[in-house]
Amino acid sequence: MTVEPNDRKLLYEEWASYSVFYKYQPVGLIRKYFGEKVGLYFAWLGVYTQMLIPAALVGVVVFLYGCASVDDNIPSMEICDARNNITMCPLCDQACSYWKLTDACGTARASHLFDNPATVFFSIFMALWAVLFMEHWKRRQMRLNYIWDLTGFGEEEEDHNRAEYEFRVMKKSLKKEQSTPKGEKVKLTCTDRIPAYVTTLSVMFFMILVTFAIVFGVILYRISIKAALHMSSYPAARANIRATVKTTAAIINLIIIIIMDEVYAAVARWLTAKEVPKTDKSFEERLIFKTFTLKFVNAFTPIVYLAFFRGRLVGRPGAYLYVVGSYRMEECAHAGCLMELCIQLCITMLGKQLIQNNLFEIGIPKLKKLLRRRKSELDGRSEEDRLKSLKRHEKDMILGPFVGLSPEYMEMIIQFGMVTLFVASFPLAPLFALLNNIIEIRLDAKKFVTELRRPIAAKARDIGIWYNLLRGLSKVAVIVNAFVISFTSDFIPRLVYQYMYSPDGSMHGFVNHTLSYFNVADFQPGTAPLSPNNLGYPVQVCRYKDYREPPGSSTQYELSKEFWAILAARLAFVIVFQNVVMLMSDFVDWLIPDIPKDISLQIHKEKILVVELFMKEEQGRRLALRENHHQDNCCTSPSPGPDSLPQPRPRPLSHSHC
Amino acid sequence: MTVEPNDRKLLYEEWASYSVFYKYQPVGLIRKYFGEKVGLYFAWLGVYTQMLIPAALVGVVVFLYGCASVDDNIPSMEICDARNNITMCPLCDQACSYWKLTDACGTARASHLFDNPATVFFSIFMALWAVLFMEHWKRRQMRLNYIWDLTGFGEEEEDHNRAEYEFRVMKKSLKKEQSTPKGEKVKLTCTDRIPAYVTTLSVMFFMILVTFAIVFGVILYRISIKAALHMSSYPAARANIRATVKTTAAIINLIIIIIMDEVYAAVARWLTAKEVPKTDKSFEERLIFKTFTLKFVNAFTPIVYLAFFRGRLVGRPGAYLYVVGSYRMEECAHAGCLMELCIQLCITMLGKQLIQNNLFEIGIPKLKKLLRRRKSELDGRSEEDRLKSLKRHEKDMILGPFVGLSPEYMEMIIQFGMVTLFVASFPLAPLFALLNNIIEIRLDAKKFVTELRRPIAAKARDIGIWYNLLRGLSKVAVIVNAFVISFTSDFIPRLVYQYMYSPDGSMHGFVNHTLSYFNVADFQPGTAPLSPNNLGYPVQVCRYKDYREPPGSSTQYELSKEFWAILAARLAFVIVFQNVVMLMSDFVDWLIPDIPKDISLQIHKEKILVVELFMKEEQGRRLALRENHHQDNCCTSPSPGPDSLPQPRPRPLSHSHC
Repeated sequence: MTVEPNDRKLLYEEWASYSVFYKYQPVGLIRKYFGEKVGLYFAWLGVYTQMLIPAALVGVVVFLYGCASVDDNIPSMEICDARNNITMCPLCDQACSYWKLTDACGTARASHLFDNPATVFFSIFMALWAVLFMEHWKRRQMRLNYIWDLTGFGEEEEDHNRAEYEFRVMKKSLKKEQSTPKGEKVKLTCTDRIPAYVTTLSVMFFMILVTFAIVFGVILYRISIKAALHMSSYPAARANIRATVKTTAAIINLIIIIIMDEVYAAVARWLTAKEVPKTDKSFEERLIFKTFTLKFVNAFTPIVYLAFFRGRLVGRPGAYLYVVGSYRMEECAHAGCLMELCIQLCITMLGKQLIQNNLFEIGIPKLKKLLRRRKSELDGRSEEDRLKSLKRHEKDMILGPFVGLSPEYMEMIIQFGMVTLFVASFPLAPLFALLNNIIEIRLDAKKFVTELRRPIAAKARDIGIWYNLLRGLSKVAVIVNAFVISFTSDFIPRLVYQYMYSPDGSMHGFVNHTLSYFNVADFQPGTAPLSPNNLGYPVQVCRYKDYREPPGSSTQYELSKEFWAILAARLAFVIVFQNVVMLMSDFVDWLIPDIPKDISLQIHKEKILVVELFMKEEQGRRLALRENHHQDNCCTSPSPGPDSLPQPRPRPLSHSHC
Repeated sequence: MTVEPNDRKLLYEEWASYSVFYKYQPVGLIRKYFGEKVGLYFAWLGVYTQMLIPAALVGVVVFLYGCASVDDNIPSMEICDARNNITMCPLCDQACSYWKLTDACGTARASHLFDNPATVFFSIFMALWAVLFMEHWKRRQMRLNYIWDLTGFGEEEEDHNRAEYEFRVMKKSLKKEQSTPKGEKVKLTCTDRIPAYVTTLSVMFFMILVTFAIVFGVILYRISIKAALHMSSYPAARANIRATVKTTAAIINLIIIIIMDEVYAAVARWLTAKEVPKTDKSFEERLIFKTFTLKFVNAFTPIVYLAFFRGRLVGRPGAYLYVVGSYRMEECAHAGCLMELCIQLCITMLGKQLIQNNLFEIGIPKLKKLLRRRKSELDGRSEEDRLKSLKRHEKDMILGPFVGLSPEYMEMIIQFGMVTLFVASFPLAPLFALLNNIIEIRLDAKKFVTELRRPIAAKARDIGIWYNLLRGLSKVAVIVNAFVISFTSDFIPRLVYQYMYSPDGSMHGFVNHTLSYFNVADFQPGTAPLSPNNLGYPVQVCRYKDYREPPGSSTQYELSKEFWAILAARLAFVIVFQNVVMLMSDFVDWLIPDIPKDISLQIHKEKILVVELFMKEEQGRRLALRENHHQDNCCTSPSPGPDSLPQPRPRPLSHSHC
């Protein structure tokens, strides 16, 4: 596998430029220049990006369907209809006052974009898409294995121990010297690692708690800001309270996530080092596993909160749930939290990708390079002629070192999570991912070709642990989507209303059905709004979004029968959805063979050829022996003959008299 | 692989006798005498039986726990307590009258044996057990592959086409003769098979309908008999109505199942033949798939009905559900249908196994043998000296032909289904299976050694499609058990009552809570009992097992809030159970490597050895060549020399001057 001097140039022109973004990558050349491991990464990235195209298309269609159908969506129409004026209970104590449901018109219309039957179809589609992606990759990998001639290559080759490990072993053996007899193999047992494991567990647990704490902090920020804005006298500020709060909060979340990501990476590395894994392979795997866990929790905690807890822990008017002192847990906009979930996802994905790509993947390396050059400039000679005098490999010393593929993979896996896990609430995710990846590929290419020292070529048959992580994610995605559809969106309540409660089988009256009544006399002292008459008329009864008994009934404000019926429907939907999708996935998985037909045929053919070859060889040798023997018989010159050879002696029956 | 004359005798003594039931099977010898395929079957059967031992033990413990805790089980105590006399609504129209709940005391106590918290634990245990069994078998298979030296052996070897297929192809090519040009390969496309597929689908659909019809017929039988018995004047008859009906019905079911099994086997074979599969392998797989589907449906429809539909489609007093004319759908005994499910399972398993084993596996072959002998006796000479004069293989002609392993496997798979699918309702299933299999192994052994002609040894690496079927079953088992626990048993209602409704957090008052009130004035005309005062006092209000609004409420007799709450709890339990168990299974699956450590080491070592060997060989040959060459130089006699050999000519650099 020699490298012509112009390979790198070729890569630079054919691969590492945005002008060829629409072309397939020259995977063979990449592998030739960077080795199998890097080659597989880019091959995988290519397949992933390619598979994202259909997903993005369908996603856009679904989104457009939402846009098109927003005007004939009865619930949002009813919300926006000023004629049925519904007085809602205040959203915060004292400062806030009663408000008209029509104020939520905008949100309601917007959230229909992401909360319509099409999203259900789309999340089923994406679940199957994930399986197809796996299968497609498996086949591609198999093909590459065959083309790159790795079929015979096992993993055992590269498991020599790490220096740190040997060092630990040596220390241990020295310690044991006096106690144990000589000559017995010393190795690190689990017991030696226990302290490290304990540290790992506790630290990771702590880190996850930190994440939760941060998320909770952001919630508190949201609540307090909202309250403050409500108090503020500027009508302008109060007008777009929600928007302001949502966006700022989301951005804060984003920044925190990006900062913590770096912290977590360092922590994971430190923990893994403490564990003293035996081989580089196991070191890498342990590191990846830790990093993944932390980054995953970090990236998805806020989203999970928004999707499943936001607005469910609010209590009810007159008995609100208060956290840290007098903060009331925040409610959702009228039409469910789906909207906010969307914004969060959108900002996280876009922001994360833009910032990480630009800042971390372009900015930092350039900066480092610059610094290195500055440093090297300190010695007197001027840059140009010095560079001229330098050889290629000397020049390349200025480049940054190659830190492994894990960060690249990690970024993609988290993105894959975004694309699959909450796709039910944000059908545009695949599109964003696609756009990002088209840039990403060339960005990484540039980085590898121009900004990093050439990595030492490493052999690999597959993408290793990453495949398992992908598989795990796509399994979790099914259940998460099931829950998003049935609990976060209003899909199930709408169905239930239509088929159980609606007088004429239509959606008319749905909004009214989802709102419970509250007698303003039942406000706890000090929580009633200060300006009760802001709407211009005295309010006796206000409404809130929940299924509870009306005031005056024997069990007033308790969860009503409707609540339980709808809950049952939601859970039933989860069961059906999960099992149907899993069944379909297994079916697809079973339908598509892991090894492409032509490849398996090729392999089979070659196996036969090899056998035949050996047969002939054997035969040939036997003939040769007979020859030798024959010569022994008739040749007078004393010759060492075949006896000296490490070969079986010719059998007597092969005598041939001359 | 030569066979000593005494192998068969050895097998007969060491394997095919009940006296050695506690011993491991001589798998090596079996494989040596019958070939890999049969060897694998018995190895698998052995592993399965072995794995059943712990399952049976735990099952017995669970059952004993049920027995022990029956006396301090509050619900059944309350049912049996004569002091709180609860008047139940009649179980059938007119003929039946009101009855006291205390009459259901026996059933309630009995059903506690199978409806206690321990069964929940047990079904989780069995789900994991199934996974462990799979893993264990995979490892065993791998080991056998290694010992039997099959690691290199691929499946491609035995795919020559079947005669029927070739015949069809020939006919087709003749038909096409005139139309298409010569020389192009004719093969059966999907289009040629479409009619066959259509037939298959329709026939199988029809067959499944037949099964359902039969089950429904049995239900009607139950209902009508019950009614008849109620009318009958014999107090004796009326006393043990339930028992009679249950048992007779179960037995009828059993008989039908056994008969239909044979029918279905024939149908499946016929259908597969019509499809004209290409290779024997595909023929077998298609056949197995069909047979499995039909037999599975046949065996489990009655059980599924009992578990999930029985007693749920009854309607309510005053608005019962009537089928075919005036038959009221049957209700369950008071404490759920679990008891009847148990009886059904028990009878099916025991009966099926006993009858099938004795009748089909011992009786029929013996009969056939006898007949064959009779026939052969018809020619004059007497049996003894004729047999004496005969050679072994001639004598063996009297034996029955070998029909393949599918029936054996099928029986076991269905049993595996019984053991895993409904284990939540019948913890003794593994024990029954274990006892059956201990006999089964030796029975099959005897059959193979003494009653069947020696099969042609066939090579196989694994048990093929059967493994997938097992895997599928153990996946389905999880969800089925979840449903059995949450819907068939009273586990969830008890929990909900205890934590939501119970005044003092105990189970006291549970029975009362599960019973709704019915005002006897609301009976539809002609359905009220003829003898209303049989209990000695006039009845205004009777109770029935359901969660419905009491009479007099605004929505009387409608499903109550409790019903929906409990339904939600049940569904939630299903989701939690399924996902937790699946997670644990995946974890176990991931924890246990498929290939035993020692084996993988061995294989790796051997690979290296082979490589070294080739190296040496190569070297040796080069030496040999140099030798030849040397001889050519110094030997005067004209010799064909190495040129005639199919070997590379010695390179010039290997010249050695003498």
